[in-house]
Amino acid sequence: MKKTFYTYLLLAYTCFSVMAQQRAPYVISPDVHPDHSVTFNFNAPNAKEVMLDGQFFDKPQPLAKDANGVWSITVPYIKPDIYPYCFVVDGNNIADPNNTYIFANERFKFSLVDIPGDKPLIHSLQNVPHGKISYRLYKSATLGTTRQLLVYTPPGFVANGKKKYPVLYLIHGGSDTEETWTKVGRANLIADNLIAQHKMVPMIIVMPYAAVGFRKDAVIHEMMNDVIPFTQANYPTYTDSRHRAIAGFSVGGGQTLDIAFTNLNKFAYVAAYAPYPETEEFRSIFGADFKPNAAQVNKQLKLFSISVGTEDFLHDSVVKNLAMFKEKGINVTPQIVSGGHTWMNCKLYLSTTLPKLFK
Amino acid sequence: MKKTFYTYLLLAYTCFSVMAQQRAPYVISPDVHPDHSVTFNFNAPNAKEVMLDGQFFDKPQPLAKDANGVWSITVPYIKPDIYPYCFVVDGNNIADPNNTYIFANERFKFSLVDIPGDKPLIHSLQNVPHGKISYRLYKSATLGTTRQLLVYTPPGFVANGKKKYPVLYLIHGGSDTEETWTKVGRANLIADNLIAQHKMVPMIIVMPYAAVGFRKDAVIHEMMNDVIPFTQANYPTYTDSRHRAIAGFSVGGGQTLDIAFTNLNKFAYVAAYAPYPETEEFRSIFGADFKPNAAQVNKQLKLFSISVGTEDFLHDSVVKNLAMFKEKGINVTPQIVSGGHTWMNCKLYLSTTLPKLFK
Repeated sequence: MKKTFYTYLLLAYTCFSVMAQQRAPYVISPDVHPDHSVTFNFNAPNAKEVMLDGQFFDKPQPLAKDANGVWSITVPYIKPDIYPYCFVVDGNNIADPNNTYIFANERFKFSLVDIPGDKPLIHSLQNVPHGKISYRLYKSATLGTTRQLLVYTPPGFVANGKKKYPVLYLIHGGSDTEETWTKVGRANLIADNLIAQHKMVPMIIVMPYAAVGFRKDAVIHEMMNDVIPFTQANYPTYTDSRHRAIAGFSVGGGQTLDIAFTNLNKFAYVAAYAPYPETEEFRSIFGADFKPNAAQVNKQLKLFSISVGTEDFLHDSVVKNLAMFKEKGINVTPQIVSGGHTWMNCKLYLSTTLPKLFK
Repeated sequence: MKKTFYTYLLLAYTCFSVMAQQRAPYVISPDVHPDHSVTFNFNAPNAKEVMLDGQFFDKPQPLAKDANGVWSITVPYIKPDIYPYCFVVDGNNIADPNNTYIFANERFKFSLVDIPGDKPLIHSLQNVPHGKISYRLYKSATLGTTRQLLVYTPPGFVANGKKKYPVLYLIHGGSDTEETWTKVGRANLIADNLIAQHKMVPMIIVMPYAAVGFRKDAVIHEMMNDVIPFTQANYPTYTDSRHRAIAGFSVGGGQTLDIAFTNLNKFAYVAAYAPYPETEEFRSIFGADFKPNAAQVNKQLKLFSISVGTEDFLHDSVVKNLAMFKEKGINVTPQIVSGGHTWMNCKLYLSTTLPKLFK
């Protein structure tokens, strides 16, 4: 989706008369090469220093400036995946102006570079039937506002109610939005590909916006009293716990555990990805008063897994919580992989969870 | 959708270990006040100069730095609307890192500030039934790729085919994307509100990605042979020209005219918003060889309108093309309003077109 008419290009400089003067001329960036090296270009004739910061690096690397004021760096080989990056221009983070793909987030604006594999990756756009993503507005009685959530329906989805679907509720990380699981995590393409490979059951995936303000238990109320009822009223879903799963990353991983363990008879599948435990809610649910009926929990949960990367800043906390659940007699499956607190790992976690659901 | 847990906030600084050092501390921006003044804040202790550039200004204005390195400006009164803006930090454009709302575009990254009216505006989120937006992937035989388009279906949409809907094909401007009409133009909320007010017929609105590379007639082929057939195969639509409309902005306005006048028996409603004429395609269709059968055209087109703002850089070109169509005997309705080549005007154009369709 990168090539445009030359005329489009001209127009890009003229169409906003006020803002045109400040707009840097067009360069191609990122330029992903067949050998998995990537050239990043940034036009800033007056900048004194331009660095590239990306999650494929340990630390930012300098770009070099050419005679036209275009700064460039070619990063030799990057392991195929989708990575966030930005330019650091005289100390300020700037998303790549020539890259359409932006990390959906409330607190930073990073760009995304997609380095394809020699063979298609599980999140790659492949020649398979595609589901769709619907952007839905719904009224939250809990919060007294109209909010947006995203709904993935699988290829061949039948809306008439003659076929019923199981549902996965999938929660983003802190400062992410309801779009992060699709725009950054490619949840829809992962599901399309796994369904095409007959590795997962066709299901509905609901991605709410889980930032709910300061009311302690609001995210639990919002999920149970607004998100799930809206989904069940508008989509042909099963409504029993055997056909309901919940998963989430980081703050959303903590919320996943909060929601599941305060509503244990409502979910049969629970997957927390690098769950963040430092919230009042988490501490109150999983503190000294957490005395679960382990036999009942183990009977109810067909899957209970917690994932984390060895370089994740939450690794030790996750290990501690895994031990806590085991100590309480609860069967929990650890998934310890390499990597950090990243959306590269999120895609891995999701693609290993989906095949385990509703079987 | 702006408030988050304090814990979210903390996490935003810690979750990307590599990128954390460069991230500026959290400030609220933009901060829209009840009197329609707006404070913009940007944290950059090391910047030498920070300007605010926005489409509510004639020229960029300086921010002032406080003792903590936070730069601020309060713009007194801004007429309620949605405006693109960015910070210009030591000469470089930067989208507001604390603002989730980004202008969907391939060539720049501007933020959007939404200043609500004292009464709800036509693009405001109101307490009315809402349609939905679906993100669909489809195969383009014309281009040999899989592409994405967006489909708005109205509130109460019935998918079972018992009810049929008319369709508006709505094209973005140069360097925009298939998301610009919803993310910047709020086409979905405008339609929701007009339908609730009984001012427009419930319809499907299809928003394709109209950048097609360098093949001259590709956008026409893509629309007629891929976008329309995909829509008609996947949605319960009427398939006659009386129930098909096309509209577009800027480059997309030129494409609208190109598509409509090379397929005149396929559309009954044609609306071009500040159409950009400097393409090879436009010149070849509307050049010396353009000899339309005016009586037939006028009989076919229930609506043919061209809109432009008096401050639009394309104003004179539009006036010339209006004269050209009239000179050929074609009935065209001019809509000349104040304002420039902006998405503020796009929302106005769309909200005046929608009530005229399919009646």
